[in-house]
Amino acid sequence: MTNAPTAPAAALDFYFDFSSPYGYFAAEQIDALAARHGRTVNWHPFLLGATFKLTGLGPLPGIPLKGAYSMHDIARSARFFGLPYRQPSTFPIPTQHAARAFLWLHGRSPAKAKAFGLAAYRAYFVDDVNISDLGAVLDIAAGQGVDRDELSAVLAGSEIKAQLAAEVEQGIARGVFGSPFVIVDGEPFWGADRLPQLERWLQDGPF
Amino acid sequence: MTNAPTAPAAALDFYFDFSSPYGYFAAEQIDALAARHGRTVNWHPFLLGATFKLTGLGPLPGIPLKGAYSMHDIARSARFFGLPYRQPSTFPIPTQHAARAFLWLHGRSPAKAKAFGLAAYRAYFVDDVNISDLGAVLDIAAGQGVDRDELSAVLAGSEIKAQLAAEVEQGIARGVFGSPFVIVDGEPFWGADRLPQLERWLQDGPF
Repeated sequence: MTNAPTAPAAALDFYFDFSSPYGYFAAEQIDALAARHGRTVNWHPFLLGATFKLTGLGPLPGIPLKGAYSMHDIARSARFFGLPYRQPSTFPIPTQHAARAFLWLHGRSPAKAKAFGLAAYRAYFVDDVNISDLGAVLDIAAGQGVDRDELSAVLAGSEIKAQLAAEVEQGIARGVFGSPFVIVDGEPFWGADRLPQLERWLQDGPF
Repeated sequence: MTNAPTAPAAALDFYFDFSSPYGYFAAEQIDALAARHGRTVNWHPFLLGATFKLTGLGPLPGIPLKGAYSMHDIARSARFFGLPYRQPSTFPIPTQHAARAFLWLHGRSPAKAKAFGLAAYRAYFVDDVNISDLGAVLDIAAGQGVDRDELSAVLAGSEIKAQLAAEVEQGIARGVFGSPFVIVDGEPFWGADRLPQLERWLQDGPF
């Protein structure tokens, strides 16, 4: 007797802000982690600034005691994960341009969007490129084979702005308030330090 | 040729607030973790409320979005660590009495203080005993063989209050702002989710 065919396992939803170092650490690992358990990943660009208004929280560096620790923890966590990292000269930064570029690319090819996303993360957190700058975002996209002029025109329009705003609003409605944030089968996991719990969930099922 | 004798490895400093579930998770593991690498642990009772004034942060449950997630994460983290846990009816709570009792016991016997500390944590996070109550703290200590009347007299005095205030101030001066917080050879680790980084540090040295 054979098992009845089952529906394919649902994709993970991965929310990230391009200004989030822990988001970068997760972006470098999440697809491989999911693939180990027969899952795929939907990447969702997110803007932490939109949640700061709701939670009353703010960027890490400005918080007494916690800010200094966090800068230390970020660099050590990169080494713990075996990832290259250099503290950006300007941190944090607004990431609307990068998020909108990602979203537009994602509508054409999720794989190309992910390649751009990793390139943007590495530019910011390894090569100290300030990706809040529109020109830097266009350069990175062009380096991934994207038509620079076409993307430039898209980012100047209002449609992609509305799309990103809707994407962020949808994330908040699902409870997203940080980066990285993963939702799998309705279960939320916040932080690169929750990847071990996520992996156990994927491997053994709900615990 | 033999190696020169080396000084014994320094103890870990472990800071915890009795109202912190992640502090409870770490308290259940920290001595065994340290022992695996030939280390001992100095336990330091801490009051998170004192740092909230400095950091502008506050108790988790009151934070929109993050609060609801945190309550979920705490229960799941307990299962992840294989520890019993029940969400206390009242959370968070003031923990001065428990912290002062711990500190006084620690001056007489660190081992007895740890036994009391674990008993207090389990009373609060497993049996839903509100340990902000002085009587509950005295009962828990009595259950550990402590003279109830003697401890009651100590906790009514001003000396132990000044001692705890100094202990908390010293922690803050070392950068402590959360619970659990571990300092080993000058290196700070915040959160039960940093125990894997702490363990690698103890095993392989600085990374």
